[in-house]
Amino acid sequence: MTSPPEPDLLHHGDRDVRPGLVDLAVNVRRSGPPPWLAAVIAETIGGLGAYPDPSTAREAIAARHAVDPSCVLPTAGGAEAFTLLARALEPRPCLVVHPQFTEPEVALRAARHSVQRHLLQPEDGFRLDPATVASGPDLVVVGNPTNPTGRLHPAADLLALRRDGRVLVVDEAFMDAVPGETESLLRERDLHGVLVLRSLTKTWGLAGLRAGYVVGDPELVARLAAVQPPWSVSAPALAAMAACSSPEAVGSAADEAGTITTHRAVLVELLTQAGFPPVPGSAAPFVLVDTASLGPQSVREQLAERGFAVRRGETFPGLGPTWIRLAVRPPDVSTALAEALTDLRRSHRVP
Amino acid sequence: MTSPPEPDLLHHGDRDVRPGLVDLAVNVRRSGPPPWLAAVIAETIGGLGAYPDPSTAREAIAARHAVDPSCVLPTAGGAEAFTLLARALEPRPCLVVHPQFTEPEVALRAARHSVQRHLLQPEDGFRLDPATVASGPDLVVVGNPTNPTGRLHPAADLLALRRDGRVLVVDEAFMDAVPGETESLLRERDLHGVLVLRSLTKTWGLAGLRAGYVVGDPELVARLAAVQPPWSVSAPALAAMAACSSPEAVGSAADEAGTITTHRAVLVELLTQAGFPPVPGSAAPFVLVDTASLGPQSVREQLAERGFAVRRGETFPGLGPTWIRLAVRPPDVSTALAEALTDLRRSHRVP
Repeated sequence: MTSPPEPDLLHHGDRDVRPGLVDLAVNVRRSGPPPWLAAVIAETIGGLGAYPDPSTAREAIAARHAVDPSCVLPTAGGAEAFTLLARALEPRPCLVVHPQFTEPEVALRAARHSVQRHLLQPEDGFRLDPATVASGPDLVVVGNPTNPTGRLHPAADLLALRRDGRVLVVDEAFMDAVPGETESLLRERDLHGVLVLRSLTKTWGLAGLRAGYVVGDPELVARLAAVQPPWSVSAPALAAMAACSSPEAVGSAADEAGTITTHRAVLVELLTQAGFPPVPGSAAPFVLVDTASLGPQSVREQLAERGFAVRRGETFPGLGPTWIRLAVRPPDVSTALAEALTDLRRSHRVP
Repeated sequence: MTSPPEPDLLHHGDRDVRPGLVDLAVNVRRSGPPPWLAAVIAETIGGLGAYPDPSTAREAIAARHAVDPSCVLPTAGGAEAFTLLARALEPRPCLVVHPQFTEPEVALRAARHSVQRHLLQPEDGFRLDPATVASGPDLVVVGNPTNPTGRLHPAADLLALRRDGRVLVVDEAFMDAVPGETESLLRERDLHGVLVLRSLTKTWGLAGLRAGYVVGDPELVARLAAVQPPWSVSAPALAAMAACSSPEAVGSAADEAGTITTHRAVLVELLTQAGFPPVPGSAAPFVLVDTASLGPQSVREQLAERGFAVRRGETFPGLGPTWIRLAVRPPDVSTALAEALTDLRRSHRVP
């Protein structure tokens, strides 16, 4: 028996997209920012001669999460946050809860940390039991809700992973798609030993701008800031971050979280009817589906022939080629997808 | 006798600027991009939902410098380039030619390289004699033209620093302000062991956007690319880089280089008349002045009282508080500055 091949951790969903296909591979929910936010960004262009100053964005984010500005660090997207984290801390034993977004593990390995994987299991619905997580590692990374499983771990289960001398990193890149942001660690008063990563990319259509931030233990945030290259976050990204932190913008994101919940319910129902029930309990703007009933190969190419680009599963540790991640889209798109899957099943039955 | 205090390498000119003062501290030559470039940037906003793809910018930069795209890496400004360089290479003995921009040394030290300084001397006009540079270090960093001295080293002198197994890094952030870009290593056919860093910040008013690039030995460029976080350069920055690489934009920068040369000649003449002859031979959009004739203290505060923000010299290794760097501005600004300096000298004479 041979072990499965090591997944390509450097693969990202944007490489699964192809011109002409309906994009269910990338989780960004807009082709660009809404007009009011586009105007905020456009307004920065005339003053781009000045070096960027993150202080206004930092204060706006702090106010949005009711923390001190010393708890906040704007970053050039989530990818920079993982790089800073890996570089700020002395190499140490780390544990990454998988399957999840692979960049944290890539960044940790590149900075010579030793990385252990804690694999959640499909038969448990990828649920995390904190009692089974190794107590040794000095740094634990977990996504919430988790990409690609959609699983929303209870905040209490994550807090149970805290230890003296351990850094707990929670990637909340998709938390603003969860109504009420329940289970966000940013609802806790005590962030000792905790770093939470957030993104503006998905909700606000800003993947191209590189806008994200870290909130957490001010001592840890200061260590990340110390290794951040100067002027790392652009002025347009900082302006967008400040604008998206306003009560109006947060309220608008909350409304959209409600819409996503409704659209996801439709998608789950249609996929289940088509014989492809997703991993239960997704709280994310995507669902994860196992197509093993159609055989051991990926159905990605066959879905592309039917007009849909989906995110491959085999690059996530703990998953294989039969898994696909599907973005939540409006019901008409989900209906067409379910029809394509039904057609796919039919074609598999024909000898 | 005590040694001088270690300079604050983390200080940058943007912190010497104060509202209401004429800014001679920052080298960016515009408050923002020209209208045609602002339009290019604005056009990217509608599509910011897509992750950035550097390939078009990479090809445009390659065409502009007549190299293969494998020789090019777009970066989030020069600061990211130094960070990538420091992280991509195994810690090694490095040599930084000072006085110069301090970020390379900061980035190298942060990545645990051992850094030796080669101090150029004011009595030589900060000229570099390659024969005096230690032959041991495996990495040498030099600016050309050099910030803050303005010195343009002959390309032949820089090429004389090449050795088997050594990486030669030339920061050409201000080279596009030199008419004809004479002495740029990008005019050489053989870039083996060489990395050249370029910036769009100063000429195009893009400090807030984070746009720069590396050109050089494709083997070294690949090593930098391997440690660059994914999607590090934003889509607006990539669009600006591609646009600024067009023959028209390069021609426009060349025209501006001519204007800078004229304006600098006026500034040098006025400063000399006022009794503050700058370091001779500046080819940069700034000049360096020693005000030691007014005493051992910095005159920065006294110039601020007279309406001018200037870049302090004491944060550059090899300089002290009597040194100030002055941006080249149109003749009316230079005239007012020379008057302020004359007034300053007069006030120093009064007991």
